[in-house]
Amino acid sequence: MAKNTNMRWRLPLICLLWEVAMIILFGVFVRFTPEASARWEEEEKKQNNITSDIENDFYYRYPSFQDVHVMIFIGFGFLMTFLQRYGFGAVGFNFLLASFGIQWAILMQGWFHSFKDGKILIGVENLINADFCVGSVCVAFGAILGKSSPVQLLIMTLFQVTLFSVNEYILLNLLHVIDAGGSMTIHTFGAYFGLTVTRILYRPNLEQSKDKQGSVYHSDIFAMIGTIFLWMYWPSFNSAVSNHGDAQHRAAINTYCSLAACVLTTVAFSSMLEKKGKLDMVHIQNATLAGGVAVGTSAEMMLPPYGSLIVGFICGIVSTVGYVYLTPFLESRLHIQDTCGIHNLHGMPGIIGGIVGAITAAAATKRVYGSEGLVKTFDFTGDYANRTPMVQGGYQAAGIFVSLAIAFAGGSIVGGILKLPIWGDAADENCFEDDVYWEVPEDEESGLYHMHDPTLKPASP
Amino acid sequence: MAKNTNMRWRLPLICLLWEVAMIILFGVFVRFTPEASARWEEEEKKQNNITSDIENDFYYRYPSFQDVHVMIFIGFGFLMTFLQRYGFGAVGFNFLLASFGIQWAILMQGWFHSFKDGKILIGVENLINADFCVGSVCVAFGAILGKSSPVQLLIMTLFQVTLFSVNEYILLNLLHVIDAGGSMTIHTFGAYFGLTVTRILYRPNLEQSKDKQGSVYHSDIFAMIGTIFLWMYWPSFNSAVSNHGDAQHRAAINTYCSLAACVLTTVAFSSMLEKKGKLDMVHIQNATLAGGVAVGTSAEMMLPPYGSLIVGFICGIVSTVGYVYLTPFLESRLHIQDTCGIHNLHGMPGIIGGIVGAITAAAATKRVYGSEGLVKTFDFTGDYANRTPMVQGGYQAAGIFVSLAIAFAGGSIVGGILKLPIWGDAADENCFEDDVYWEVPEDEESGLYHMHDPTLKPASP
Amino acid sequence: MAKNTNMRWRLPLICLLWEVAMIILFGVFVRFTPEASARWEEEEKKQNNITSDIENDFYYRYPSFQDVHVMIFIGFGFLMTFLQRYGFGAVGFNFLLASFGIQWAILMQGWFHSFKDGKILIGVENLINADFCVGSVCVAFGAILGKSSPVQLLIMTLFQVTLFSVNEYILLNLLHVIDAGGSMTIHTFGAYFGLTVTRILYRPNLEQSKDKQGSVYHSDIFAMIGTIFLWMYWPSFNSAVSNHGDAQHRAAINTYCSLAACVLTTVAFSSMLEKKGKLDMVHIQNATLAGGVAVGTSAEMMLPPYGSLIVGFICGIVSTVGYVYLTPFLESRLHIQDTCGIHNLHGMPGIIGGIVGAITAAAATKRVYGSEGLVKTFDFTGDYANRTPMVQGGYQAAGIFVSLAIAFAGGSIVGGILKLPIWGDAADENCFEDDVYWEVPEDEESGLYHMHDPTLKPASP
Repeated sequence: MAKNTNMRWRLPLICLLWEVAMIILFGVFVRFTPEASARWEEEEKKQNNITSDIENDFYYRYPSFQDVHVMIFIGFGFLMTFLQRYGFGAVGFNFLLASFGIQWAILMQGWFHSFKDGKILIGVENLINADFCVGSVCVAFGAILGKSSPVQLLIMTLFQVTLFSVNEYILLNLLHVIDAGGSMTIHTFGAYFGLTVTRILYRPNLEQSKDKQGSVYHSDIFAMIGTIFLWMYWPSFNSAVSNHGDAQHRAAINTYCSLAACVLTTVAFSSMLEKKGKLDMVHIQNATLAGGVAVGTSAEMMLPPYGSLIVGFICGIVSTVGYVYLTPFLESRLHIQDTCGIHNLHGMPGIIGGIVGAITAAAATKRVYGSEGLVKTFDFTGDYANRTPMVQGGYQAAGIFVSLAIAFAGGSIVGGILKLPIWGDAADENCFEDDVYWEVPEDEESGLYHMHDPTLKPASP
Repeated sequence: MAKNTNMRWRLPLICLLWEVAMIILFGVFVRFTPEASARWEEEEKKQNNITSDIENDFYYRYPSFQDVHVMIFIGFGFLMTFLQRYGFGAVGFNFLLASFGIQWAILMQGWFHSFKDGKILIGVENLINADFCVGSVCVAFGAILGKSSPVQLLIMTLFQVTLFSVNEYILLNLLHVIDAGGSMTIHTFGAYFGLTVTRILYRPNLEQSKDKQGSVYHSDIFAMIGTIFLWMYWPSFNSAVSNHGDAQHRAAINTYCSLAACVLTTVAFSSMLEKKGKLDMVHIQNATLAGGVAVGTSAEMMLPPYGSLIVGFICGIVSTVGYVYLTPFLESRLHIQDTCGIHNLHGMPGIIGGIVGAITAAAATKRVYGSEGLVKTFDFTGDYANRTPMVQGGYQAAGIFVSLAIAFAGGSIVGGILKLPIWGDAADENCFEDDVYWEVPEDEESGLYHMHDPTLKPASP
Repeated sequence: MAKNTNMRWRLPLICLLWEVAMIILFGVFVRFTPEASARWEEEEKKQNNITSDIENDFYYRYPSFQDVHVMIFIGFGFLMTFLQRYGFGAVGFNFLLASFGIQWAILMQGWFHSFKDGKILIGVENLINADFCVGSVCVAFGAILGKSSPVQLLIMTLFQVTLFSVNEYILLNLLHVIDAGGSMTIHTFGAYFGLTVTRILYRPNLEQSKDKQGSVYHSDIFAMIGTIFLWMYWPSFNSAVSNHGDAQHRAAINTYCSLAACVLTTVAFSSMLEKKGKLDMVHIQNATLAGGVAVGTSAEMMLPPYGSLIVGFICGIVSTVGYVYLTPFLESRLHIQDTCGIHNLHGMPGIIGGIVGAITAAAATKRVYGSEGLVKTFDFTGDYANRTPMVQGGYQAAGIFVSLAIAFAGGSIVGGILKLPIWGDAADENCFEDDVYWEVPEDEESGLYHMHDPTLKPASP
């Protein structure tokens, strides 16, 4: 059955409506944080006896922000170009949903965290957090990559950003959980949300587009651009919103270590699990990153470097084994069609990250952190001045379950909405195919593509 | 008629002559700024009571410089690889002209702005400004992409950098205009200069190479590397040379907002203007960036974030509509052959940026900026201590016209020079073809390329 | 003769064993440097009267670190994707060896330079130095690219990192040599080590895979991603571990200048040395970078900007001429098969860099550097308080010879080890072929690849 995938009115309408809504809401609510306002010079700066411009938060966080920005737009975008005929959709839709998502995230997170006298005051940290929030949408996008219309993606983004912000508020503000690199808030939430959505959108006849679910040689190399940028900048991701000073420093080092270890076990298991010992690009593109996910919570704590190596070691294995055994099982038995295998890259490593964070927090001592360091790291101030590390560990663990619960519940509802037959998604035989939503150059339509057909017969002169 | 495109003596001669000239001029004029000199420690640092190395301008600007650097070399270079057979020329010639241009720009801008006791004193800010200056050449290159020889490009660079510096001097020093992100000096000037040049170099029979003016599937993905890096790092572009502290902070936020909005309206109009509602990669690759161009002047002013959204909103529309309707019109009626559509990406958005800047400046008040902030933002000091925001707005507007005038006049003269039949440009039927100036691997010559030919017939065994 | 290239047990075993070893050694030895420890707040920071978190070394070096990180993983990885059928191996094996290498480098360099009370204390500078160390392995990898198994690469990495650290210790600590950008320690050592290894692994029948030693159109564009990122971030490479303040500032400027000049002479000679004056992508991809290599030692000294231009000028010529004349000579006469031409990009420019550094050091005067600047630049303190610039120049020169000696001796031994027939390298006719160690998508196996065959005959329907 041919579905109507014509986006001509639906997509423009939604984009324009939402952008107008953003303008109105920004107009009503969003202003600059003092450090980004021209009044900084004569007000906050003087009031706080700040003697140098370099103390502006901009210089602490902007380089990390740009690295995170690259991860969201180049990293996730190109990682998903591995499909032979879905490169435009991978980079382009990721670009679209992230651009919309960051605006909505600035509002949602602003209301929860940067609201003062009726205004949301934004600075560079808000930009980072908006990127983070959208990161969880990019994760979920990985599960439904190639199977959804751009309208569906925008709808999902709207809801997921909302739910993300609620979940984040519960974790950070109500449970007072530490999660600077987002193992729970970004990865666990994003992955299980996306998996629930794709479960609900289950396509029984997806094997009709099986031939397009693989990669071609150059699409695998494009995907490596995404992988490597994600891998390289992950230390910035996990340290971007940590406390100034030693915490940012430490988070970067731990992430670097975990990722390095993860590459080695990924390669080991990729080779081991294949009959002829050849490496599989899918594993190298994805499982190598699991180490970054899994130290997201604990990287800024006093997790020692060897601890990071151990986490990376385990996650490379878990993730690669997941690709080989778990993904096919999830698809055949549980009807979870997970295009990019986000369960292996973000789901399981995210949960591991939450657990590692809980254990590391519970094990914190004054001897290791120093008195001030302990208070600063876990923000044991105000209402939480008497919380012990052990109790903190318990709350950290609770954060995992809250994230999972909201992901499953939210994913079910959003999946249900996306299942409505009005959003213009493609028929099963047209999945993983740019031609549905994009003007595609002729080479693919007439030349290169059909060449893959073994019965290729050139036109007679 | 076969033209002589052999570069063997012309290109080497020009490259070597100019590099020797650069060495001589650098030898006579260029020295380190105090902050980059080994004498800093015991001289300026002590004299100015600077207590910390972190106060060195290097730490304020170097991360932004590197982002700008990526925009010039990866951003512009890869953006132009969209042509199916001109990827080497796009990245390679951009690399060549930018490398030459930055050296000449350091000299030209140095004489105007960093000249002291007979020497040009350079630091990281000079490197950024040199990159900016070359950015305007990269813009102009977009108009003549695929139609010019490397020698022509170097000649154009020499003249354009010179004219850029004169225009910049008039705007910044004589009119005392604010334009940190270069809406006027870089984009408006660069675009209309390039459009004038391509008008003068009009090729009536260019349709002979029409088949090569399109993209192929993978060339479009390569181009997205350029687009996304330009898009991500544009906040650094617009904030790189702003005042330390809040101004850099604010400029980055505004640019981020404008760009995000721009993506949504680009997508909306790209889909709306195509019969079947499919998205056009040309729009996504280019029009999404117009929002960055158009807040170049105003981003560091107290343009509120919703103002940035509005600018981005408008520019996504203007730019996309320009690609659909204006570019064909300019080509058929005005004989302006604009390969990359720079009029839509840099021309119109640049002018809009100038106007937005003028309005934002004219609307500035002490209430919003604070007294010190107002003086600092617009540098109302010395001869300009009594200038009012309203007058400043007038000068800002004048800056647009000066930029346009110099672009048209300069472009006409330079176009005339480039029209001389001695520079080795290709015949109309060989445009958009790397094979003319590059050793091209065999796959393209014998295999992949001819395959696009519907009459392809493989050799008999 | 078919060789056994099955990696199924060898590669996993080595990866896992080594990662376990890393975990144990990190567990025993590696801890955080005070600036990355939670105790910083109440200990070092207070003791040293540090008033601001921004004084943490993290903020001086992290942006440069990330740029270096990009050079190692994207830069080297993609630069080597130019081969038509070895893109997976180029990016993937580079990823593998670098990930292992940085861990081992942190240990080796830590024992030599960051060892205190039985522990290695690591911070961001250690991460940069580990990346640097691995950079020399990436250089050597360029010589044996396409001809070695991943197991061989890991073995080589283990030994080369060890030797690198010994050589570095001799240069920096015993000879008290300045080499912040590593002209000697990274490039000279890495190149001649790799050339010696490839000499020992000489394959007399390598012409059997000659058809795969070239590039295809898109592989050349992928390689340009590597080139441009290396070129852009080289200023960060040469300034990353320089002294805070003016030294980092100066090193970045000098490298920028040298690289710009190098592009022009590379283009000049590439065009000049080809009959029809066409440019050769091999030169543009590689020789343009020689200018960065050759100011590695001197960039942080008071080498004036025109001096950098001269160095870049010369190196573009030397490197391009090397590709045209020397590489074939080395292969045919000396049996040195240098896949990427590292002798032209790292070998000769590295030696030039050492010489330029020695001359620049010997020519240093108090007038130019200031008294404090001279002491700080060359660290004329403690045992070296009485060393004169002229003597320093002599030691600098000695550093070149030590690096060469250790490279030749070490390369011979390691080459001998790698020659053992147990590491699973491919037969001569299977070199430069991803299919040996990677699962390769079908398009290459059945479609695109065979199409290059002039006798291609499509299957009958």
